[in-house]
Amino acid sequence: MVRIAVDAMGGDLGPGVVAHGSLRALSQLDDETRILLVGNETHLRAALGGRSVAGVEIVHAPEVIGMHEAPATAVRRKPGSSIAVAMQLLEDGRADALLSPGNTGAVVAAALFGPGRIHGVHRPAIATLFPTEERDCVMLDVGANADCKPVHMLQFAAMGAVFARLRLGCERPRVGLLNIGEEDSKGNELAVAAHALLRQSGLHFVGNVEGRDLLAGRADVVVCDGFVGNVVLKFAESMLGFTGGLLKSQIHSSPRLMLGGLLMRPAFAHLKKRLDYQEFGGAPLLGVNGVVCIAHGRSSVRAIESAVLGCHALVRDQLIVRIGDELREIGGDLLENNEQRTDHGNG
Amino acid sequence: MVRIAVDAMGGDLGPGVVAHGSLRALSQLDDETRILLVGNETHLRAALGGRSVAGVEIVHAPEVIGMHEAPATAVRRKPGSSIAVAMQLLEDGRADALLSPGNTGAVVAAALFGPGRIHGVHRPAIATLFPTEERDCVMLDVGANADCKPVHMLQFAAMGAVFARLRLGCERPRVGLLNIGEEDSKGNELAVAAHALLRQSGLHFVGNVEGRDLLAGRADVVVCDGFVGNVVLKFAESMLGFTGGLLKSQIHSSPRLMLGGLLMRPAFAHLKKRLDYQEFGGAPLLGVNGVVCIAHGRSSVRAIESAVLGCHALVRDQLIVRIGDELREIGGDLLENNEQRTDHGNG
Repeated sequence: MVRIAVDAMGGDLGPGVVAHGSLRALSQLDDETRILLVGNETHLRAALGGRSVAGVEIVHAPEVIGMHEAPATAVRRKPGSSIAVAMQLLEDGRADALLSPGNTGAVVAAALFGPGRIHGVHRPAIATLFPTEERDCVMLDVGANADCKPVHMLQFAAMGAVFARLRLGCERPRVGLLNIGEEDSKGNELAVAAHALLRQSGLHFVGNVEGRDLLAGRADVVVCDGFVGNVVLKFAESMLGFTGGLLKSQIHSSPRLMLGGLLMRPAFAHLKKRLDYQEFGGAPLLGVNGVVCIAHGRSSVRAIESAVLGCHALVRDQLIVRIGDELREIGGDLLENNEQRTDHGNG
Repeated sequence: MVRIAVDAMGGDLGPGVVAHGSLRALSQLDDETRILLVGNETHLRAALGGRSVAGVEIVHAPEVIGMHEAPATAVRRKPGSSIAVAMQLLEDGRADALLSPGNTGAVVAAALFGPGRIHGVHRPAIATLFPTEERDCVMLDVGANADCKPVHMLQFAAMGAVFARLRLGCERPRVGLLNIGEEDSKGNELAVAAHALLRQSGLHFVGNVEGRDLLAGRADVVVCDGFVGNVVLKFAESMLGFTGGLLKSQIHSSPRLMLGGLLMRPAFAHLKKRLDYQEFGGAPLLGVNGVVCIAHGRSSVRAIESAVLGCHALVRDQLIVRIGDELREIGGDLLENNEQRTDHGNG
């Protein structure tokens, strides 16, 4: 049985959208799947239309953590929040996975307080799929760690490789380091040191990947610190709307363009689908001791649906066990020696 | 008289394109403007069709610095390179501005060895125009400094504000800090410390700007370290080609879409023009003691033309004097105290 706890209160569009998306996913999964909708019971009963649904259980959580609350404080002060209650289900073994479209920092904090890290992991990282010319790639960290050390980047690479293997089906994922030049010696201090570690790691490291290479699909896993990753991800998400807006304003300026726009509609829809984060199935927080996925705050029904399906697949594919295996394979020596070194060098 | 030294050997498309673009700019400028084309005399004479052109002088430089040469070493070892010779013209006062589409690192290194920094500037930064929904904004640093300290970011802000005033015509430019959250306390150590400095600076600081806000035009000047800035800039430059490629492959899949694409052509052209870095007039290296502009390695005739025009305007508008004034206005105290503090805190 796979039980997925869904934080139904976190999304910007309300619990109805989250409930609806979860049900849509459930209908595609086997009878052994359970959805635990966590949140205000009254709201959730209403969202389900007052009826009970096979495979769905409501778990009451009286509090909500807002998008702008300070994460660690909010998690400590609100043990009754939907994020904290859902995380408790995961920690207690009453759920196998957790999905939240809520405050990302609060999800990370609750995961660290609760289930904690997989043995050997220093810092969990948020991974996301990113579209490229060929197929999607995995990018991480996209926001859990604003400041990183080289050894963290090495671990991100290993965890990202596991996720790429499971999610993209590449047996030997090509790992690239997001950097500002092709040569090994390029970049900031962090990138130069991380580059050296990745070279020794036994991972299939293909070197530096520049901003312009991201979409070209030169790597299956792109490693970066959570500051750069978050800036790039949010920028990329905004780019589609921006170009779409510019085109739309043009289209309305002449009948010729209006007709052209009408005819082009299927192509625009295809482009949107290709680039839309809603299709990407949630971003796993890799390195915590349980399957934890973060969905976009503005997640639609479709986005929640695909994120629930993503959670289910990661449980089925034993993400946690595989991350542990991968880290053991890289070897404690490389990780621990470099933890020492970097603690002094970059602390 | 305004004399612009143009490194004609640096561009990927060869000296002919650089020469042609320079002539096109010259034809739009007054009779008092001179172009000094720096590079291999034989190639340049050939590029000019063997004739002498009024207002254009060829300055022979026997060597070239390649795109992948280590900047500082190359500049030292090749005093006869087009970049070094052009920089010498600037340093000696025989040119008022320098434009190079060559190795960016080499231009920065040559500028530091030669004309050096404006009094009070710790680190020069490369500024670029970036399209937004409203009008363009200035983003810096986009690649001169991979590792920055908070005080550098403060100076970038001041220099960027001067450039925005001259180039975008905003009297009191809104300065934003590229960051990963809206709240003051968000970000990595560098961003948090830079935020605090910017708050005290007397600049019109509007707070943090997230990746998703860049294109929304929430600031006229966006400050970031050269690593993040370079990644975002190169990513943005690649995005247009990527979406264009996806659309094109769609268009060829059906007659309906082909017709739509044909009708939409003017709208696509408008979009391309709006987002194309070729229109942006070169990226000034702010903080060095002379007008130095860097053009894209793949600069077309049009890109060189607009970059030469950009150089001319910055000389006319007394960029160097104005940066000095702006830094004095922010005050030595804030800058120097924080230089001390950050030297210990982030070294």
